Amino acid sequence: MQFKEKLEDMQAKINSYLNSIIPRDEAYINNLLDSMRYSLFAGGKRMRPILMLTVGEIFDCKAEFILPFAAAVEMIHTYSLIHDDLPAIDNDDYRRGKLTNHKVYGEACAILSGDALLNFAYEHILDFSLKYNDTRFIAASYEISKAAGIYGMIGGQVVDIENENKPCDIKTVEYMHKNKTGALITASVRSSAVISRVNADDLTRLTDFAQKLGLAFQIIDDILDVVGDDAKLGKKHGSDLKSNKSTYVSLVGLKSSREMAARLTNDALNLISFYKEKAEFLYMLTEYLLNREY
Amino acid sequence: MQFKEKLEDMQAKINSYLNSIIPRDEAYINNLLDSMRYSLFAGGKRMRPILMLTVGEIFDCKAEFILPFAAAVEMIHTYSLIHDDLPAIDNDDYRRGKLTNHKVYGEACAILSGDALLNFAYEHILDFSLKYNDTRFIAASYEISKAAGIYGMIGGQVVDIENENKPCDIKTVEYMHKNKTGALITASVRSSAVISRVNADDLTRLTDFAQKLGLAFQIIDDILDVVGDDAKLGKKHGSDLKSNKSTYVSLVGLKSSREMAARLTNDALNLISFYKEKAEFLYMLTEYLLNREY
Repeated sequence: MQFKEKLEDMQAKINSYLNSIIPRDEAYINNLLDSMRYSLFAGGKRMRPILMLTVGEIFDCKAEFILPFAAAVEMIHTYSLIHDDLPAIDNDDYRRGKLTNHKVYGEACAILSGDALLNFAYEHILDFSLKYNDTRFIAASYEISKAAGIYGMIGGQVVDIENENKPCDIKTVEYMHKNKTGALITASVRSSAVISRVNADDLTRLTDFAQKLGLAFQIIDDILDVVGDDAKLGKKHGSDLKSNKSTYVSLVGLKSSREMAARLTNDALNLISFYKEKAEFLYMLTEYLLNREY
Repeated sequence: MQFKEKLEDMQAKINSYLNSIIPRDEAYINNLLDSMRYSLFAGGKRMRPILMLTVGEIFDCKAEFILPFAAAVEMIHTYSLIHDDLPAIDNDDYRRGKLTNHKVYGEACAILSGDALLNFAYEHILDFSLKYNDTRFIAASYEISKAAGIYGMIGGQVVDIENENKPCDIKTVEYMHKNKTGALITASVRSSAVISRVNADDLTRLTDFAQKLGLAFQIIDDILDVVGDDAKLGKKHGSDLKSNKSTYVSLVGLKSSREMAARLTNDALNLISFYKEKAEFLYMLTEYLLNREY
């Protein structure tokens, strides 16, 4: 199968799974469910779930064991976007070219839909873990929860907000990136690896890979915010500049940022070349994610 | 030990446990941690955690097995209050006589502190469950997650919001109460029972007890919103009337509401009298919760 075909196939599998687990037509809460679905199916690339299925494939792990956790990660990612977009935080009207959740459903519903997606992520993987009663599923759930919380995504988000309109140093920008986006990407790879019962060396190698991928991904985001094409991004570029945020680009310049992203990409690819043809798709996926224009 | 002494002893045990698990002095996220602590230690009665320890005692279950889950429930309860108080939802400036979280830390931080408490609740019980690798802890975690989500607290909250400024029927008010407050109270009792390895009959009996307790508690809340003393409540009464919310009192009147609360209280007490002197404290606790003026 060609790369693009396989990518679309995985996206379809994830969308179909997500569609099957979010309830429909429940008396009293239909508006809430609509709002959750609206953001969950607003055109996300499913990068994290695809990464998870891809890691699982290297170790011949069944997709049915990865999918519940991939869905949870996507729900957590989506809730964080809904809350980030709120007037009190980034105050964004558009995301991926569509109105943000609170612009369609109102602020109260957007806050609660975010809460509901976060909670449903845990509800879903706990339900699954209870059925199978196998420690690796608890270990994977814990990996995800740690990465989503104060020592991960939420911690990074807080620093991002405090960083607005205030110049900060490269260490702070690194902390922010490592936690706000990097932690959940790393947890995606690690949780899949744990579910696939990899050995300690593999877990270290894949963690290293994921950290480099996550950081490169975020540096590229910073670069695209300066040089990106609005139509491809689905949002206005220049938002970091507008909110006076320190970024890699503002601190070390465009040229150094590009070199850094290239070096990290190269390192990430070298790490997974260890798995030879088994990691062919992960190799292509990494190149694809790090050569994007959106 | 006298009732009040034991109650205070349990509160102290829960506060000390909560204090030990919420981190302090972490570079970059101190403001977030302060904000989480602010609401977590804003004078909550710890009703749910106390209920959980009390149920555990009936079956001689070690407190160390219950405490992590009791803390999780209290964190979930606290996050829901922070988000409820936000300007976009109830827009409350005070809770329990203190400024609400967003009035002290700002809206962005209040949203993220709520998210952080919800996530940390799961992070904490997953960490614990992973250490012990015992199905009852996963079952208890799942009970809590279900009750906190779309089929529980969040579902009830959505209906509560939609119910503002719009008359609704008694079925809708029942749905709202059952889910917004009842579900987490029931999950508190059920999760403790599951951790205590009770049999199926006990689980049914305790579920029935918890549902009656939760509903009575909420009807009394509605009554106190009409006849309560602001100083004892720590907030202004009449807030339901102000926001035009339908309640038990507005739909069936004060007299019928009182009769209903009395009947439910009586039924709840009858159910636990099955455990005789083993349930003495739970009996007193139930009377205490349902004869409150605040």
